[in-house]
Order: sequence, then C-alpha cells, then structure tokens
Amino acid sequence: MIERLTNKIKLKNSSTVKGVGDDAAVLDFSNKQIVITTDLLTEGVHFNLMYTPLKHLGYKSIVVNLSDVVAMNATPKQVTVSLAISSKFSVEAIEELYEGIYLACEKYDVDLIGGDTTSSLTGLTISVTAIGEANKEDLAYRSGAKKTDLICITGDLGGAYMGLQLLERENEVFKGNNLIKPQLSGHDYILARQLKPEARLDIIAIFKELKIKPTAMIDISDGLSSEIKHICKESHSGAKIYEDKILLDNDTKNMALEFNINPLVTALNGGEDYELLFTIPVTDYEKVRNHPDITVIGHIADESEGTVLVTNAGSEIELTAQGWNPLK
Amino acid sequence: MIERLTNKIKLKNSSTVKGVGDDAAVLDFSNKQIVITTDLLTEGVHFNLMYTPLKHLGYKSIVVNLSDVVAMNATPKQVTVSLAISSKFSVEAIEELYEGIYLACEKYDVDLIGGDTTSSLTGLTISVTAIGEANKEDLAYRSGAKKTDLICITGDLGGAYMGLQLLERENEVFKGNNLIKPQLSGHDYILARQLKPEARLDIIAIFKELKIKPTAMIDISDGLSSEIKHICKESHSGAKIYEDKILLDNDTKNMALEFNINPLVTALNGGEDYELLFTIPVTDYEKVRNHPDITVIGHIADESEGTVLVTNAGSEIELTAQGWNPLK
Repeated sequence: MIERLTNKIKLKNSSTVKGVGDDAAVLDFSNKQIVITTDLLTEGVHFNLMYTPLKHLGYKSIVVNLSDVVAMNATPKQVTVSLAISSKFSVEAIEELYEGIYLACEKYDVDLIGGDTTSSLTGLTISVTAIGEANKEDLAYRSGAKKTDLICITGDLGGAYMGLQLLERENEVFKGNNLIKPQLSGHDYILARQLKPEARLDIIAIFKELKIKPTAMIDISDGLSSEIKHICKESHSGAKIYEDKILLDNDTKNMALEFNINPLVTALNGGEDYELLFTIPVTDYEKVRNHPDITVIGHIADESEGTVLVTNAGSEIELTAQGWNPLK
Repeated sequence: MIERLTNKIKLKNSSTVKGVGDDAAVLDFSNKQIVITTDLLTEGVHFNLMYTPLKHLGYKSIVVNLSDVVAMNATPKQVTVSLAISSKFSVEAIEELYEGIYLACEKYDVDLIGGDTTSSLTGLTISVTAIGEANKEDLAYRSGAKKTDLICITGDLGGAYMGLQLLERENEVFKGNNLIKPQLSGHDYILARQLKPEARLDIIAIFKELKIKPTAMIDISDGLSSEIKHICKESHSGAKIYEDKILLDNDTKNMALEFNINPLVTALNGGEDYELLFTIPVTDYEKVRNHPDITVIGHIADESEGTVLVTNAGSEIELTAQGWNPLK
C-alpha cells in the first residue's frame, strides 16, 4: 500500500536527489549531499515497556535512525525527536527516556536539533528524524549492485530476534506469576542486541581506510532475506548467498535451539540487528577477506537466477521476505 | 520541562547553526542554509475525527510544518510524513489522508521525500518533518527584534479558534441527538481557518518584492500573546501592541460574541491561525503601510517596559501567554 501511495509522488525540486525508496532521502543544496530519514515507534507495536527500560528505548530510537543514515554511507550529524506521551508517564520517566536519547547523541556525535513533545490519549509514540551528510560520490544506494559483486555483511545476525524471544517468554512467565524472577542472566549479548543496538558508523570509517565504495548498501532491520531482496529489486539483479557463510553468535544459536527455531532463520527472517548489508566489486575481495567485522556471504547474480540461499547440502532455496513488518 | 531537557544539549557540529529554540533548526552544509522542523499530531489531542475530514487533516498536517519553515523566512522544499494507524482505519481512509497530504505538497511545491507508515494500538498519529532553504542572510530568527522596530502581522487572527469552538459545539449537539444536523452554513471562513489553514509562503515573496528583511519572525500557532512573548524573550526586549490595530474578521467577531467571548481574546489567546508575526525597522514603515496583507500592530520597546497591550481606553495590560498548549 505504501508503494501505491508513494507512486504518485512527482519530485519537483532540483534539490531533491532521491525521495522515497531508499534507506534515506538525499537532498543536494550544494557540494555536500544531505541524507534525512525518519522513524515512528509506537508503544505496544514497536516496544513493550514491560521489559524495555526507558533509557534503552530512548537510545534505540536514535540508533535505528542513525543506522539508516549510515546505510547510505553517510555520516549522521543531527536528529530531531518528537514524543507523544500519555498522562501515565511521570516527568522522571520522560527524563529517563531523554537520558537514553542524549547518550546516543553523545556516542554518535550527533546534535539533537529539534522536535516536539506533546500529549497522547494512550501510550507513548516516538518519532525521530536523522540527518546526515556525505560527498555525492560516496553515497551508497540500494540500486547500485552489479552482477558478480560480492555480498557482505557486518557483525552477526539473529541476536536481536532471539533477545526479543527471550524477553517475551520471560515476560509471559512473569505475568503468570509475579514471584517468578525473569531468567535472563548469561544472555547479555542477545539482550543487548535487542535492547541497546548500535549503528555501524564504525564501518564508514573502515570503508574509507580500506578505500572501499559499496556499490549498494542497506541496513539489516528486517532480516537478511528481506534486505537482500530490496537490493536485488532496486538493482535489477539476483543474488546467491551461502548458508555456511552466515555465522551466528553462540548465544543466538543456543537460544534458537532452545526455542526450537532453526538458527539460520533468526538471521534470515529475524529483525533489528542493524548490521549492514552491502555489495562491493569482486576486485575488492582482498580488502575485506580477513577483516574481522566483515563477512562475504555470497554474490550478486543475474536477475533471472532469483534471490537464493545455497544450503550446505548444495540445494538452492528461493529467499522470501518474511521480515518483521508491523503492518502485516 | 522541555526547556529543562533541552538545556543539556551541546551542539557539536559546525553544520548546526541553530538547534532547539526557534521555529526551525538551521543547518549549514554550504552556501544555502537548510531549515528543518517537525510536528507530531495525535488523535484526540490535536484533532477530532468526528468533525475533521481526513483529507483536511492530511493537508493541515503538512501546512503547520511549512508554516514553521516560512516563519524562518525560508522556502519549504521537502517533507517527510510518518503515520501510526490503528486497525480501525480502512485503506480508503488512509488514502483520503494522503490525498490531503499530496494536495498540500502540490500547492506549496514541496516534495514528499520519505516517512514511515506503521500500526498503533489506538488512534492515529501523524509526524511531519519539513525542510526548507534560505540564503543565510535572509533567515529571520526570533531573536533579532530591536527597540523601535515595528511589529506586524499578516492576515487576521482568531478565526481558527472560533471555527474550532463552532465545530465543538455542533459536535456536542450532534452527539446528544443524531437527528439534529450541525448548523455550519454561513461560517465557511472560520471553518476553513480551522480545518484547512494555509502557510503564508506568499509573504516570503512579498518581502523580496518590498525589499524587506524581517528582524524577527514567528508563526502564530498559539495566539498572538504567546508569540509576541517568544520574540520579546529571545530578543531581550519589550513590546507594545495596540488594541485598535488588531483587526478581526466579521465572522470571527460575531461568532465570538455569540459564544460570549471577547473578540480580542480570540486573537490574543486563540491558536492555529498560522499567520506570521514579524518585526521590521521603523524605516521600512512606508513599504508596509498600505499593504493589504500586512498590518502594523505596535512596536518593540525596552525590556523593562514589559509586553503590553494598549487598550482603546489607553490603559496598558501585560500580555500573558495563554496560548493553546497540549501539555497544559
């Protein structure tokens, strides 16, 4: 439906380089290009305050937007934050939320430059807009992947999803019996992945250092399958990724097994990892081969070849976008 | 509280010219400066869908943001729109909302460049960010008013407030008895002021034509008293405005009398007119004296003189900010 609604848009201003359709919009007011992106988080849909500390929520609401800026190969510079708050929130609660917001701004060197705080009849809504800058030639769109390009990811995937499953499970148990303490210890990694994700701003510096310009890039907020399909669609290409290249953190893997979930599925269809998925020319292979933060997981193929996962057994499975989508 | 929360902000980037504290933030990425502003509208607080057509709501949600851009003496160029929608809204309803959004974009020549559509547990929330551009030397902050500057307004005030009163009254009557049709005819002007306000982008062109650079400017969203006090606070000045200079539309005046409201109060404390309040050097008086869209209502004074209304009887009344504030 969003596509149908945005199809009607006709860009009018020469300063609008890229509107709807990528991680962030690009504006050109002169020699630097500006990227701007926005996200709306609503209570009960995007977060559950039963187990989400407000400070973490504030932090995360900034980070998810910075991640979109970074996914353009741009550097975030400013954010605006708007809050709609129901009367159930105390001043202290709102301050706690802002503490997290400020902490993220501090960590990523971005300025909070505006916003709006208003009341709502029920619940909490957070709207963040992030603005970043980049040299025109550095910007990485979803549309630039070329056949034979290597497909790379940063970090590991699935952790945020398993952190969410764990929190949801323990919350259900707690709701059933208040005396039972949540069993969360030993799972710091996946809990942090869910509650306090980070944007991979460090990768932008690594690209500069390695003299890499990604041909296409997207952040992994909805699961790897969904994001690869976005790149393939915009780049009019296919892709092959390899099961044995997708590394999982041990805690993620064990928790998935405990939940009877195929660990690979947490990477493919879990969301909110905020790692980067990007493509580079095959000639750049040596630059990334041994980099601890970057893993080559496959390559771009002809559109006719589809977007497939090559399993360890050698069979090819068409990827489907089953990422987390609050409108589904 | 917002002030307390934003006091902590330290701006870090040289591209951030102006952060929190004006109608819009200003970023300098090169020879043009960028202004960006954002607003969050929540159902039941900012709008009542019992009497607000969704198309009008979409239109208004854009306009109120463009008005903030214009109030910087800048030209709006782009908007982002995020919606959180509960399941009670049909696809048709959302399309109607977008129709209004597109109509405003069309009318004001701005590009919708991004956003987010997500679900909410209850009600509708609309978050809009608007971006505009201006030459650095043209920007009008709240802080530039100088003693003896003339205080001017565009258009007439109080209409939106009386439109709201009328809609609220007829809605109450209708809720009491569904067979009674709302009595709205003959009040097109104040209804349009409330339901379909316009941003005074035309004034930006008039300033250029008249070779006027406002020393300070703000849009009148919360009532004249409140806005004058903002300018005085930021400009470290006082102000005198004159009762007999504040012209009201006849429909506004008559409706106020019908409601037993002092018509002047609709201008001073009513909100949502989205006219402009600005100051100009007294030497520019001849340029605006006979302009049909601009009225001189007073002048800037020394801070020690306070912010006062001079009544027709000659007495001085200190203005108080009783503008509409959803956090009150």
